[in-house]
Amino acid sequence: MRTVLVIGIGAGDPDHLTLQAVRALRRADVVFVIDKGLDGGGSQDDLLALRTELLRRHRPDGGYRLVTAPEVDRDRGTEVERDDERYRDVVVDWQDRRARLYRDMLDAELADGQTGAFLVWGDPSLYDGTLRLLDRVLAGAGEQWSVESVAGISSVAALAAAHRLILNRVGRPVLITTGRRIAEGMPTDVDDVVVMLDGRTAFATLPDEQRRELHIFWGAYLGTPDELLVAGPLVEVTDEILQVRAEARENKGWIMDTYLLRRGADER
Amino acid sequence: MRTVLVIGIGAGDPDHLTLQAVRALRRADVVFVIDKGLDGGGSQDDLLALRTELLRRHRPDGGYRLVTAPEVDRDRGTEVERDDERYRDVVVDWQDRRARLYRDMLDAELADGQTGAFLVWGDPSLYDGTLRLLDRVLAGAGEQWSVESVAGISSVAALAAAHRLILNRVGRPVLITTGRRIAEGMPTDVDDVVVMLDGRTAFATLPDEQRRELHIFWGAYLGTPDELLVAGPLVEVTDEILQVRAEARENKGWIMDTYLLRRGADER
Ligand SMILES: C[S@@+](CC[C@H](N)C(=O)[O-])C[C@H]1O[C@@H](n2cnc3c(N)ncnc32)[C@H](O)[C@@H]1O
Ligand SMILES: C[S@@+](CC[C@H](N)C(=O)[O-])C[C@H]1O[C@@H](n2cnc3c(N)ncnc32)[C@H](O)[C@@H]1O
Repeated sequence: MRTVLVIGIGAGDPDHLTLQAVRALRRADVVFVIDKGLDGGGSQDDLLALRTELLRRHRPDGGYRLVTAPEVDRDRGTEVERDDERYRDVVVDWQDRRARLYRDMLDAELADGQTGAFLVWGDPSLYDGTLRLLDRVLAGAGEQWSVESVAGISSVAALAAAHRLILNRVGRPVLITTGRRIAEGMPTDVDDVVVMLDGRTAFATLPDEQRRELHIFWGAYLGTPDELLVAGPLVEVTDEILQVRAEARENKGWIMDTYLLRRGADER
Repeated sequence: MRTVLVIGIGAGDPDHLTLQAVRALRRADVVFVIDKGLDGGGSQDDLLALRTELLRRHRPDGGYRLVTAPEVDRDRGTEVERDDERYRDVVVDWQDRRARLYRDMLDAELADGQTGAFLVWGDPSLYDGTLRLLDRVLAGAGEQWSVESVAGISSVAALAAAHRLILNRVGRPVLITTGRRIAEGMPTDVDDVVVMLDGRTAFATLPDEQRRELHIFWGAYLGTPDELLVAGPLVEVTDEILQVRAEARENKGWIMDTYLLRRGADER
């Protein structure tokens, strides 16, 4: 029996780590490092830096091996990014090729009775492909492999905490979606929408009649010393966010941001 | 200046606590205990047991005071529960009365320079009223009061981890909603819906044509030694869940459950 742990490490703050994740880290014989996130976002260097910091703190024994997972190229042309269906196909094909390489890696690196760990940004259950990848990699491998997922603080929870937000209004729903989706318009049947993976600042391109009824609670580099927060009526703070965002991106070379769009923010 | 910390303690497992939450707990001069959750759910005894356990582990110094917050009755008749608008009014009025009592408590219990902590089930940003309550309580109190929110593992993240789920499909959204809402039908524009606060097993009452296209991933007492999990096509596992749920509820006297409804679960 070989065990693979998928450990959520939180969204930027090393103290986002749960006690469960600390214990899981301590069980690992091998720590697998994926150099790029499934859906992009974040700089390789900073993710690597957080991982290194967590291992330094919680595995001072050094009794694990670090194995860098093979990276597989993917078609990232703007053409493809613009086309929802083609985008999915490209991602899915890329995942298949990756699965074969990962299977080989896991077979080679983990001996019987050993435990491997993937350290995943935020929570493994939100816009991260590691669990899906392992499902595919280990499909048919039967009972010789066990996969465990360890929950982490997501960027959604980190955004809410930073703004001291409750994401839902009393008895009402919350939608978590992508920049690509929200660019098509604010849904009419949900008044609280968290947007992730928005490289193209979709909040600024919504039709005016939608923008007028929305508040935004925006956060970048959440949980890190570089954390940036802006909140207010969308029409009033859009320019400020665009400017702050562009400057930060220019300075650091990359940005990770998430935001809540709230319709009728004056109601409870 | 007085500080109030709202600390997410995770959804049942004492090891859900983050290192940040441990540090926050250690800062508290006063720990405020609310006997009942804002929106119901969970037994007083078990919530109290988890809190006691966390304090025992992380505050062995005992250098804090435990203060039980006043409880305020609320109209919980079935009549009211059935009527969406009346339900909101009742909750809002109850929150106002509560706010006055809390203001008095905070004034009386926290001296200048001191830090108080509210321990909140799961994550403070999901279906919990503590932050809203404090907003109201401290409205107008100005800079003498500072409120901080500490993210926690929500029951949504705990559900996903237990089933090793990614909640979203590639590039697609996830809705988090209540049993009350889902009883009105599965939304047509979202294929992944997490349901909380469902005391009346709404999944079993959806129209047949909806139920046929759905998978359910159900979990109760997540993160605790009593954790229960059932997953499968909704039409095939509904009876099993209803039976398991009824028995568990009967045995323990209460139940807390959450589930994901997924349309077209065979697609990625
Ligand atoms: C590939 S997804 C991974 C999400 C991750 N699994 C989680 O639970 O947060 C990357 C997206 O998460 C959001 N994100 C992650 N970390 C963030 C942070 N520290 N600050 C702001 N947004 C963040 C951004 O929207 C980014 O585009
Ligand atoms: C008042 S809400 C509080 C939610 C909490 N703030 C969170 O982040 O999970 C209570 C609801 O959360 C869900 N819940 C909380 N803890 C749970 C657990 N351990 N297992 C299953 N469901 C849970 C149930 O749907 C329950 O009705």
